[in-house]
Amino acid sequence: MKLYSRESSGNSYKARLLLSFLGLPYEKIEIERGGDGRNALPADYLTLNPRGQIPTLVDGEVVLWGSTAILYYLALTHDGQRRWMPAQARAGAEVLQWMELAQNEILSGLAIARGIIRWGFKEDLAACQAKGIKALTVMERRLANHQWLAGEEPTIAECACFPYTALCPEGQIDLGPYPGVRGWLARVKRLPGFVAMPGVE
Amino acid sequence: MKLYSRESSGNSYKARLLLSFLGLPYEKIEIERGGDGRNALPADYLTLNPRGQIPTLVDGEVVLWGSTAILYYLALTHDGQRRWMPAQARAGAEVLQWMELAQNEILSGLAIARGIIRWGFKEDLAACQAKGIKALTVMERRLANHQWLAGEEPTIAECACFPYTALCPEGQIDLGPYPGVRGWLARVKRLPGFVAMPGVE
Repeated sequence: MKLYSRESSGNSYKARLLLSFLGLPYEKIEIERGGDGRNALPADYLTLNPRGQIPTLVDGEVVLWGSTAILYYLALTHDGQRRWMPAQARAGAEVLQWMELAQNEILSGLAIARGIIRWGFKEDLAACQAKGIKALTVMERRLANHQWLAGEEPTIAECACFPYTALCPEGQIDLGPYPGVRGWLARVKRLPGFVAMPGVE
Repeated sequence: MKLYSRESSGNSYKARLLLSFLGLPYEKIEIERGGDGRNALPADYLTLNPRGQIPTLVDGEVVLWGSTAILYYLALTHDGQRRWMPAQARAGAEVLQWMELAQNEILSGLAIARGIIRWGFKEDLAACQAKGIKALTVMERRLANHQWLAGEEPTIAECACFPYTALCPEGQIDLGPYPGVRGWLARVKRLPGFVAMPGVE
């Protein structure tokens, strides 16, 4: 398998986390950030991924763009017990519900606030921080009295929600008021196979 | 089943479309837009949906927020043939790949451009239209030579991507340059059980 990824990308890190939890070998192809702040993509990249984003996974003839699709595919193909993406309708839907938070308030809030501070993204910092705080509030409500986001075991919802939550201090958002979230971050870091990235110890 | 929904909401319409395609009876609870432009939520709504968004689905003890989770749950529980959400890993992941587009460029581009024009959302119209055009370009690349977004039959990816694509003229985005997308919109409208919404004939 090949993963087009960047070391500083939280979206890429979602896939790298699950690949590591599952102990899967893969070739990592680093996509640098160009001088204009955008991805410096290989010439043929848009034929693999018309969105021009990272990550992209290539597994033989299977090509998938988008972290949700990649996490789902890896969980179904490489986790025979279906622990990371439960087969039952309700349990699976609860996982996807948190992955939708990862694609909404976590991304447009926590991730973009970090992008403004670190790379000068031209967006409204206060508005992004407010969206990010909403994401943390929703997560805290769950994690104040549960170990994991969906169900009783870690799932791909953890892989999707962990990166930009762990990185949110880089967007100048304080995790102090969210003890449930902080406890969950620590639990994810203790999972066998956990791998770090710059900004996440 | 109960669906908390609003007639003018494209996100709610995603769920209403699949409920109608599957022929499922349900109680529709209309969430009005308050004077401040936000959802006028019932007093206990945040206990159902801590994000405070619509749609929310309640099916007995199952409560799900977010259109992706709702579509996935309905497809797994009420479509024995698994046509709307294929069971195979690759086919399912390809569906989720398009649902991620629905949560990103389609939502932050096409949907927000419509919100700026129709309800005065305070965001950058040109930037949203540019993101929306990117979404249409990605879809056109697929739909120029395929009938459906993922695989050879309609799936929940159609339910997720159709609403804000069909509504994009309300965000002053012209579908003229996208004949593949226009053909696909027409095919979705011809599916048995299709239901309209204001702005979509």
